[in-house]
Amino acid sequence: MSKRSSKEIPDIVIGRLPVYLRTLHLLADAGRDVTSSQELGEHLGISSAQIRKDLSHFGEFGKQGTGYNIPYLCNQLQKILHVDRIWPVVLVGAGSLGNAIANYGGFESRGFRIVAIFDEDQRKIGLPMGPVHVEDFANLAQRVEESGAQIAVIAVPTSAAQRVADQLIEVGIHSLLCYAPITLTVPDRVRVEYIDPVIHFQHMTYYLR
Amino acid sequence: MSKRSSKEIPDIVIGRLPVYLRTLHLLADAGRDVTSSQELGEHLGISSAQIRKDLSHFGEFGKQGTGYNIPYLCNQLQKILHVDRIWPVVLVGAGSLGNAIANYGGFESRGFRIVAIFDEDQRKIGLPMGPVHVEDFANLAQRVEESGAQIAVIAVPTSAAQRVADQLIEVGIHSLLCYAPITLTVPDRVRVEYIDPVIHFQHMTYYLR
Repeated sequence: MSKRSSKEIPDIVIGRLPVYLRTLHLLADAGRDVTSSQELGEHLGISSAQIRKDLSHFGEFGKQGTGYNIPYLCNQLQKILHVDRIWPVVLVGAGSLGNAIANYGGFESRGFRIVAIFDEDQRKIGLPMGPVHVEDFANLAQRVEESGAQIAVIAVPTSAAQRVADQLIEVGIHSLLCYAPITLTVPDRVRVEYIDPVIHFQHMTYYLR
Repeated sequence: MSKRSSKEIPDIVIGRLPVYLRTLHLLADAGRDVTSSQELGEHLGISSAQIRKDLSHFGEFGKQGTGYNIPYLCNQLQKILHVDRIWPVVLVGAGSLGNAIANYGGFESRGFRIVAIFDEDQRKIGLPMGPVHVEDFANLAQRVEESGAQIAVIAVPTSAAQRVADQLIEVGIHSLLCYAPITLTVPDRVRVEYIDPVIHFQHMTYYLR
């Protein structure tokens, strides 16, 4: 983790950059070359001032009155987020969720490649899943070393998630994306992000009657 | 949407309450009766002061020195988030992602029930999936009316997501959880939350070298 960057720029700002990048790619796919903070803001439900302020942490990307050049801003955001390369990712859990993740087509174009999928269930080992075949979780250390993966996805049942996280960290993984609905206990140097649909549902129902 | 509540309490605070509730349930499942803002903060990587401040928007839940009674605080948070009941949810898309969501076992205990799964692919219609059978998307209006669903999950390919969202909104759905990696264009009264693993990956890689 870069102490310098993480001190200077709030993590919440960093968290918005991938959303800007996704939106810029959608505009580019629609054949657009130029956009504005106003247009991005309308798409995203964020104020144009916020978008300009967020981007200003990293330099000058647009000119007053002419807006942002989309390919240039995409390119710069990819560099800032270090996705001007492909990051190898390992996935643990070859159930229906692991299968869905493995078959998601949008990783490679956005900087990521699933290089291995692991399961402990001997009946699943060897099955084709997305771009690879399911491997024995016992191969984890070797495959992480070979691939240089720093990122892992945890798509195992809740009861196994902490143990899997411990083993991933043990072999050197320090960025975890966890789909199990728990909060993992990890060392400070390990970053965990969570995906849990119920968290989003419960946020919505606060506003419903 | 409650104007009163949404004005008084920042949305970012509301967004943390489901995370507190999940953590409290995990502690309860581990046989615990009492916790503290310190312990919750250590679990979640949030300061204890932040947790106390967040909860203070809604009342007094703990006593100085004795901590929080877990079953009581769970109960109160469930009421605040309106998950002291079961919300019907419709799911659109019966591919591998829809299948994974349908088979997620943790909805009902946290306030939600998948009441219908829709697809346009005639080969999928009638297949059992999680708690229900896949139905023709043409039945959407009728099933939403019958079930009273206000919440929908979009698990269709990106190219279909905006059209599906439009149709969901047309039949009265106003809370959407979208798994397609796009930003939907919706009326102001509609709330959309997004789940996109790449957004999390790209947030992580900012800190990686």
